Amino acid sequence: VTGSWVPGADGSGFGLGNLPYGVVRGAGEPGRPSVRIGEHALDLAALAHAGLLGVPEGTFDAPTLNRFLELGRSAWTPTRRRLAELLSAGSPHAGRAGEALRPLAGLEPLLPVAVGDYVDFYSSIEHATNLGRMLRPDADPLMPNWRHLPVGYHGRAGTVVVSGTPVRRPLGQRAPTEPGGGPSFGPERRLDIEVELGFVTGPGPPLGTPIAARDAVDHILGFVIVNDWSAREIQRWEYQPLGPFLGKSFATSISPWIVPLDALAAARVRGPAQDPPPLDYLRVDEPWALDVELETTLIPAGSDTETAISRTNARHLYWSAAQQLAHATVNGATVAAGDLFASGTISGAQPGMFGSLIEITWNGRDPLRLTGGGERTFLEDGDTIVIRGRSGSVSFAEVRGRIEPARRDPDGS
Amino acid sequence: VTGSWVPGADGSGFGLGNLPYGVVRGAGEPGRPSVRIGEHALDLAALAHAGLLGVPEGTFDAPTLNRFLELGRSAWTPTRRRLAELLSAGSPHAGRAGEALRPLAGLEPLLPVAVGDYVDFYSSIEHATNLGRMLRPDADPLMPNWRHLPVGYHGRAGTVVVSGTPVRRPLGQRAPTEPGGGPSFGPERRLDIEVELGFVTGPGPPLGTPIAARDAVDHILGFVIVNDWSAREIQRWEYQPLGPFLGKSFATSISPWIVPLDALAAARVRGPAQDPPPLDYLRVDEPWALDVELETTLIPAGSDTETAISRTNARHLYWSAAQQLAHATVNGATVAAGDLFASGTISGAQPGMFGSLIEITWNGRDPLRLTGGGERTFLEDGDTIVIRGRSGSVSFAEVRGRIEPARRDPDGS
Repeated sequence: VTGSWVPGADGSGFGLGNLPYGVVRGAGEPGRPSVRIGEHALDLAALAHAGLLGVPEGTFDAPTLNRFLELGRSAWTPTRRRLAELLSAGSPHAGRAGEALRPLAGLEPLLPVAVGDYVDFYSSIEHATNLGRMLRPDADPLMPNWRHLPVGYHGRAGTVVVSGTPVRRPLGQRAPTEPGGGPSFGPERRLDIEVELGFVTGPGPPLGTPIAARDAVDHILGFVIVNDWSAREIQRWEYQPLGPFLGKSFATSISPWIVPLDALAAARVRGPAQDPPPLDYLRVDEPWALDVELETTLIPAGSDTETAISRTNARHLYWSAAQQLAHATVNGATVAAGDLFASGTISGAQPGMFGSLIEITWNGRDPLRLTGGGERTFLEDGDTIVIRGRSGSVSFAEVRGRIEPARRDPDGS
Repeated sequence: VTGSWVPGADGSGFGLGNLPYGVVRGAGEPGRPSVRIGEHALDLAALAHAGLLGVPEGTFDAPTLNRFLELGRSAWTPTRRRLAELLSAGSPHAGRAGEALRPLAGLEPLLPVAVGDYVDFYSSIEHATNLGRMLRPDADPLMPNWRHLPVGYHGRAGTVVVSGTPVRRPLGQRAPTEPGGGPSFGPERRLDIEVELGFVTGPGPPLGTPIAARDAVDHILGFVIVNDWSAREIQRWEYQPLGPFLGKSFATSISPWIVPLDALAAARVRGPAQDPPPLDYLRVDEPWALDVELETTLIPAGSDTETAISRTNARHLYWSAAQQLAHATVNGATVAAGDLFASGTISGAQPGMFGSLIEITWNGRDPLRLTGGGERTFLEDGDTIVIRGRSGSVSFAEVRGRIEPARRDPDGS
């Protein structure tokens, strides 16, 4: 393969080595499953109807990728190979494929999958340690279970939204300020981000049968960047004893293009040493950490000036995607096409590498200076957060979200 | 209305005053949305195709009720009225409706909805107090937030199963038995039940807009009995700090027929006094507690002898469905057709009214004597649990599940 015939694709981060899947919509259209090549979207239904893909009839005739996910690894691998052939310079089908090519400029990216279940892990040891230090200063920052299993919980699948969707500041209860006092109610004042990487799955085995860590590759189509917006006041008051609920469920943003696991072969590196060694079902021989650089910027209302607030890398994660999937199913829980599993906040060892504002500003103590002037502890109305990711020559689409003011709620006390 | 022309319907608990919705399948068929009348299922697609229901084309041409849920209250109320007319003695359409009637005996009940998100609350003050006493004997049994908001968390929607589905004992990690030791791995030894009532929703307002407690009726189609199977060893080790995950996600069983909220008008009673009074968004003027009696029995392997292990009533719940829905959306989270919200374990004030084995046996200290001999602390392989519910003349279908032995897993350490 020498390159693609699509203008601008080679070297763009979205060349033949990437080919991420998404769903886009032109004006007045329903969403159409597509693969991204450079600054174009290749319409998958058109290719399938032309007999160029070899997938079952109707696979791409829907506004999500779920039917394709349903087909599993045995369809994903050959489809990707065919797409690379079709898009390669010299392809005999370039003419027909070209008819299915549309510039991204006129298209709106949609949520690529109807999310089934959404699980959020807590797999960065630096993040878990930072939060433990802040919230339980007198105790061991890591809970006793942390090094033995990838701690996780279920989030709200129905409020996973695509990049670009505005995020309204949530209303909610905040802890009483005096012992024995009642909670107050109002707009969240400690609105935060969480920089994460997530993977999207196809189907798993029947209820009662786990997925072995070594088989994870059969069930993971690919990865997206995740911003798991977090309301720290709401979370702090509500989370005992059953975990986060409304502090997380108002919105979770994902990047629109799913970067295939097959595009990340060169990104797979050895992860951090695990001490103590995990139980057998969590052991993997292959390298499963992902060398994906993630940069997060903040843009205040009315400004074009981006301030870089975090530069981190997913390879820091203590627990890998294969381990997360093995753990989430070891009890026999099923996995379905369209399920999303996110890593939890990705923080590195240095302050510039933290993946949430609560860490970056150390619980609000150390405000962040913005490049264009002003400072931040947590997010203000009108702030836009952009997370970008790449691994060598493979780029992720950015995930972007702007904070809208809280709803004025006459029912609020 | 004097009664139904369907033989055996009047006085059965599934008469004209009930008319619950479900999905059933004959041999070799796909699932068909139906309404239950006595010991028969009335096929809703057949009625719709005959022009007897006035719903949009295709509403019932699917193996779940989700399209009907999607239509919301403005379709639910007239559809129920028409169904009652069709099934009433003297209906001019009895002949055509009769062609759509099939005995339940030859039909398999399926999961009635594709569950979107599954939220589980913790709304029984007796249950929360019991667990607090057991797990934190030296502290206030209720967390400071408990009387101010309905504590809840997201469960795994993909492992919600219909009554009758076998439940395999999960494998998982258990806490170290010595300080500094590692966890052990194996079949859960403290497998438990949780007796709950749940409601199924239609769509809500757009992202960012809460549902007011007084509008809950517009979004709730009806109720099912829920058995939220729980693995107490797994739960205890994993749940700090993000809440239950694998201890709950292996299976949650629901009864197959959704009893409409409209069938429960007589069941709506005043709930317990709430002290302190909740914030404005959690206040309701109408009675929203549900007088639904719930009886739970255990049947050991190879036996027909049922031991009643719990008799409780949903009216004991401190937080109502309307309050749960208002709370779950106050931060702007959306609700979708097919979402399931369960109450949390329903316990009454007396030991015979507890809704989980951990309470009934007081953390295993007081074994339960079985009527046919033997005793139980937690569930053994082959045990069947049946939960039945009714409110006056309106019955719920039972929810039943049998425990299968754990998988023998070569990867288990």
